[in-house]
Amino acid sequence: MATRREFLQSIGAAGGYRATYLTMQALGLLGTQAAVARTPLEPSTAHGTRVVILGAGMAGLSAAYELRKAGYVCTVLEARDRVGGRNWTIRRGTSLEMTDGTRQRSEFSPGLYWNSGPARLPSHHQAMLGYCRELGVPLEVEVNTSRGSLLFNPGAGKPIEMRQAINDTRGEIAELLGKAIDRGALDQELTAHDKERMMDFLRRYGDLTPDRAYRGSERAGLKTLPGAGTQAASARDPVPLGKLLDMDMWSAMLFEEGFNFQATMFQPIGGMDQIPMAFARKLKQIVQLNSVVTAIMRKGEGVAVSYRNAQSGKSKQIEADYCLITIPLKVLAGIENDFSPDYRSAIAGVEYGNAIKIAWESKRFWESKDHIYGGISWVAGPTSLVWYPSDRFFSETGILLGAYTTRGGDEAFMAKPLADQFDESRRMIEGLHPGHGADLQKPMGIAWSKVPYSLGISARYRNYQDASYVRLSDPDGPFYFAGEHLSQLGAWQEGAVLSAQRTIAMIDAHRRQTVRKSAVRQHAVR
Amino acid sequence: MATRREFLQSIGAAGGYRATYLTMQALGLLGTQAAVARTPLEPSTAHGTRVVILGAGMAGLSAAYELRKAGYVCTVLEARDRVGGRNWTIRRGTSLEMTDGTRQRSEFSPGLYWNSGPARLPSHHQAMLGYCRELGVPLEVEVNTSRGSLLFNPGAGKPIEMRQAINDTRGEIAELLGKAIDRGALDQELTAHDKERMMDFLRRYGDLTPDRAYRGSERAGLKTLPGAGTQAASARDPVPLGKLLDMDMWSAMLFEEGFNFQATMFQPIGGMDQIPMAFARKLKQIVQLNSVVTAIMRKGEGVAVSYRNAQSGKSKQIEADYCLITIPLKVLAGIENDFSPDYRSAIAGVEYGNAIKIAWESKRFWESKDHIYGGISWVAGPTSLVWYPSDRFFSETGILLGAYTTRGGDEAFMAKPLADQFDESRRMIEGLHPGHGADLQKPMGIAWSKVPYSLGISARYRNYQDASYVRLSDPDGPFYFAGEHLSQLGAWQEGAVLSAQRTIAMIDAHRRQTVRKSAVRQHAVR
Repeated sequence: MATRREFLQSIGAAGGYRATYLTMQALGLLGTQAAVARTPLEPSTAHGTRVVILGAGMAGLSAAYELRKAGYVCTVLEARDRVGGRNWTIRRGTSLEMTDGTRQRSEFSPGLYWNSGPARLPSHHQAMLGYCRELGVPLEVEVNTSRGSLLFNPGAGKPIEMRQAINDTRGEIAELLGKAIDRGALDQELTAHDKERMMDFLRRYGDLTPDRAYRGSERAGLKTLPGAGTQAASARDPVPLGKLLDMDMWSAMLFEEGFNFQATMFQPIGGMDQIPMAFARKLKQIVQLNSVVTAIMRKGEGVAVSYRNAQSGKSKQIEADYCLITIPLKVLAGIENDFSPDYRSAIAGVEYGNAIKIAWESKRFWESKDHIYGGISWVAGPTSLVWYPSDRFFSETGILLGAYTTRGGDEAFMAKPLADQFDESRRMIEGLHPGHGADLQKPMGIAWSKVPYSLGISARYRNYQDASYVRLSDPDGPFYFAGEHLSQLGAWQEGAVLSAQRTIAMIDAHRRQTVRKSAVRQHAVR
Repeated sequence: MATRREFLQSIGAAGGYRATYLTMQALGLLGTQAAVARTPLEPSTAHGTRVVILGAGMAGLSAAYELRKAGYVCTVLEARDRVGGRNWTIRRGTSLEMTDGTRQRSEFSPGLYWNSGPARLPSHHQAMLGYCRELGVPLEVEVNTSRGSLLFNPGAGKPIEMRQAINDTRGEIAELLGKAIDRGALDQELTAHDKERMMDFLRRYGDLTPDRAYRGSERAGLKTLPGAGTQAASARDPVPLGKLLDMDMWSAMLFEEGFNFQATMFQPIGGMDQIPMAFARKLKQIVQLNSVVTAIMRKGEGVAVSYRNAQSGKSKQIEADYCLITIPLKVLAGIENDFSPDYRSAIAGVEYGNAIKIAWESKRFWESKDHIYGGISWVAGPTSLVWYPSDRFFSETGILLGAYTTRGGDEAFMAKPLADQFDESRRMIEGLHPGHGADLQKPMGIAWSKVPYSLGISARYRNYQDASYVRLSDPDGPFYFAGEHLSQLGAWQEGAVLSAQRTIAMIDAHRRQTVRKSAVRQHAVR
């Protein structure tokens, strides 16, 4: 402790209170809330049951972490040279090779990063937040919505600020509804008392004038800001509802209300991959990287999994009592196996979504000039958005997400070469921030359907009664399945983790039952 | 540099990437955006014009900082034993004495703080943000709104989540407006084409069913969260509009849309007083603490200011060419002066608002149990709100603001003894978070109208044509006035700083004019 105290004192001397505080935070000395009592498995003695886990994404890592606590002997086989799966943070020097033969290498400046997969954690994803606490991964606020960000439909004029779109819409709706109530149109629905209360409500809701007209509101932003002396604030003219209808950016305006996108959201400081890296530090040599699974077979009551080292080319086999398979289904379908026929067809029957993301390094013109700090600007067209970084506010440069394309109907954009996609992204950013398209540097683009060992962003089901989903939610003998694709949360990491917790509970229940049976047998023999 | 690198390497060895990064951030090594070119005064040679500045709040400190850059010789007289004025961060050991004779001493745990005055910085307060950049004050996001926070009117039932109140309101409004349009009530306002577009818009705006009814929405939160396997999400029943009208929490629901309260907002890491402390480090001995001004008089073309040392009792006098007065007007009115009569009556004619704030130290039950991370819950009644901390998320304890009372009509509450105010705050927090009223410890309460040398939170004018405001916006001979009370921003720090910038520009213009006149006189003599 003396050393640690001396160390902190030396930091205090050099950098003052803040340096000391931040270093204590970084070293985990400030204390954290007691980890959520999230024990999917009962603690157990060292029974030594062997589980081979395929895939070191969030499902595989969290499963291995919990299974070990409960006395299992685990091995995690991971085809890539890193943990995390789709949780992939790209930094200077990271190579990105896709199945179309493109190769990119990040030249981002030191310290900058790009979460090319998941990039935010909602407040209610308590399994993920719980692991961050338990593993000591420090989080910061991810600003997912900002009233200063922009909406831009090139077909309907210049960009407008989110604060204006949202509050002018509310004002104009309130005015219209007030008129309708005045005219008696809602007398069936509203009593005289309700009507009176509604009128008072609408005035406050829409910031209407006393005669219940909407003539603009400070909420929508100001043309000139107030100052000292005679420098008075002046109001903006409201954007007419017709113009807002022309823009047709309603999904963008309501994005912040999606349950998974509501404030408060978080991100790990330094990149989303701090989470899988924290798991990996706990699991150490249990995770075998560069291990490409080539065959998943039954052996006796258990399994035998063959894999090839991606670097040496050498093949190996591992035997276990159980196999927990978290490999994305598009990839799994191509691996030799002796699953039951209904499982094979279940696996083959699942389609995956694609997601294209494009990242740029840039001077932070959006902060210094437009006073946008985090949040998302939305554009009409296939690039969808411009997502501003929530890390290192007020610093010189940052990573700007210049496209996030997941919607249907954008196949044409998805089919374009990277260079054309970059051009389109730059053009839309130039539209949002005139004069700054030229500031964008070092682009990188990812198409998750083309990322080896992923081949998509998330499983797509019509609903969760889908035959494949139902089939794979139960084990096939010693083969157990888990991952985002077996949760009802879509592509979210939380789904992968909850699926893993459910599946390892099934494994543990089976083991306990087997032990009991075997004890009964021994009694019978005696 | 070698030392600094070694130092960082030692941190890296002890705490890894994150410790290094945070320490670099703390030491200001990551670089910051070029400070906004905010030069209220032209740079100047050392002309040595003397300015005595009364008050070391944000106006006085920023004025001294800029005047020095422009060649002025400044002295700042501050009555308190600290800089910052109403920007006051209370920590363990801080004494709070009020004019009613109450004395409190903070027992908050080490590392915790309470911004008892200003506590947030909007994105568009660029003078304040500019100084934070220029002075190297690190900022973090202040979560001013969260969909997980609560609304609670004890007269109308249990607390409900902000996400539910906001989105059920929107849904029900959309349904009503759709019906009214269907019934032709708005045919004067809407063409047939507009009506069609409105119907599509309302479905998306309110998350309505295809037949345009509102039956609840995922946006309003879920009764059960989705999981893996068969664990399906289930929807909440919507809160009927009548119930929302009964609650009558509209101002609370719309708070986040106030121009000064919109995301993204910031706070200095470690407390708001990091800003005045950063100014003070630049100004060094120019700021004289414990200097209680007793008389502000003219002397020749300039001024003579008398002051008494609050500790030694000794009196002194200082002479200067100009006097910049930032003392709050309620305090200034009690100081001997020879201002012109119209200035005296202007000063006497300004009323100030009051603000009561109550702070508690507590375990972070709102995070660990309710998954509320920052933002504000609102309660009916005089305590108004519960404001959750945005610093050190996921740590064990935090400072909870349990009351913020500024509204008219709460005089009865304001007149109560501290202990009764604490009881009322605890009762409302217990209502929001049943079972956790007992977790609240170490309360402190401030009433800004009773804080010596402040005597209020902000000047109140009917409008900015008010005679006092107009009068004091111009100088009285060598006496110049600045502060929040001479801005159009109310209590915001930005107003104090903008007022200071305007006033020092007047001083500088006067000096230049005087120099020119004197040069002309010298010519004439020659």
